[in-house]
Amino acid sequence: MWLQRELTLKPQRRGFHLITDEVIALLPELRLMNVGLLHVFIQHTSASLTINENADPTVRCDMERHFNVLAPEGAPYFKHTYEGPDDMPAHIKSTLIGASQTIPITAGRLNLGTWQGLYLCEHRDSASSRTIVVTIQGE
Amino acid sequence: MWLQRELTLKPQRRGFHLITDEVIALLPELRLMNVGLLHVFIQHTSASLTINENADPTVRCDMERHFNVLAPEGAPYFKHTYEGPDDMPAHIKSTLIGASQTIPITAGRLNLGTWQGLYLCEHRDSASSRTIVVTIQGE
Amino acid sequence: MWLQRELTLKPQRRGFHLITDEVIALLPELRLMNVGLLHVFIQHTSASLTINENADPTVRCDMERHFNVLAPEGAPYFKHTYEGPDDMPAHIKSTLIGASQTIPITAGRLNLGTWQGLYLCEHRDSASSRTIVVTIQGE
Repeated sequence: MWLQRELTLKPQRRGFHLITDEVIALLPELRLMNVGLLHVFIQHTSASLTINENADPTVRCDMERHFNVLAPEGAPYFKHTYEGPDDMPAHIKSTLIGASQTIPITAGRLNLGTWQGLYLCEHRDSASSRTIVVTIQGE
Repeated sequence: MWLQRELTLKPQRRGFHLITDEVIALLPELRLMNVGLLHVFIQHTSASLTINENADPTVRCDMERHFNVLAPEGAPYFKHTYEGPDDMPAHIKSTLIGASQTIPITAGRLNLGTWQGLYLCEHRDSASSRTIVVTIQGE
Repeated sequence: MWLQRELTLKPQRRGFHLITDEVIALLPELRLMNVGLLHVFIQHTSASLTINENADPTVRCDMERHFNVLAPEGAPYFKHTYEGPDDMPAHIKSTLIGASQTIPITAGRLNLGTWQGLYLCEHRDSASSRTIVVTIQGE
């Protein structure tokens, strides 16, 4: 059984944001699957998806601060600057973190670890909504 | 045909560790698949999975040393510090490297390149065992 | 329906290269699929695959320059040096960026965002051709 759906995530400020519940709420069919995989793909190159700690908000803040060190604005060798100083770092973060995640489905739910959540990583200062394509396959 | 199994990997010291043989040994059904995909997912946020060089142990040592530079302990802006200085860097490494890998299955075996192996990347100083969820689909 | 094929990508100079059209041209069966997933896997540990901006070539140049900062040649702690100064940085970039990408298939085409393209990231100075394994599943 295949299920594929495009979802629009509401605009978020620059940073790392938990979206596990928002994504699951839009996929009631998950409950019907005994075994399978969920693939979530973001159709953008200045935002990304990761899986990380779901409890302490300071993890998401530290993540944002550290990725700003790993991909700082204003590096003297950047040539792709006409969309603003946050744009090229956003592309780099997108490649470092990735455009998709694949998560096992087990007994009707995402089989994440106790402390795992799905993050939308918003790398632009002023982002609009983001589109993700969710593909579920299972039985 | 779907197959899904949770495996417990024995505790490893901080660093990068080849686990290809350990994972394959637990999945005898692989041999029956002509074409498919294996998805391996780690249910933790302070360890990760990657694919890299499977021959020279110095690669894994250099990897550990370099990721300690990319995500150093004690960054002055870290606020998530109550689980120890190795914890927030572990979360960052987990997002840089990733919680899962997907590998093609061809003619009954993982279709890795000659020099590729699956690594468990253990980012904590004192880790216990790690759980991975392996999902295989194929025919 | 499963389809799996090994493709040989022509040698590229060190850097980031758009290969979306080259990959799609080799997979005419894509058009027959209504819904599915494409998995592309590179069988090497000194090159990688990512998805990023498909329009402005300066993005790919800036990416190359920045990854050379993130994984520089000649770090004093590198021990894996006998294959040349570009080799260990190549392994690190491979783990930072990843060996595979999974992309949704929708209505007979890759469901990438408007500005997304698939990149071959070549991390060696003198690389030969690279082999990728493409696995498509869908209906």
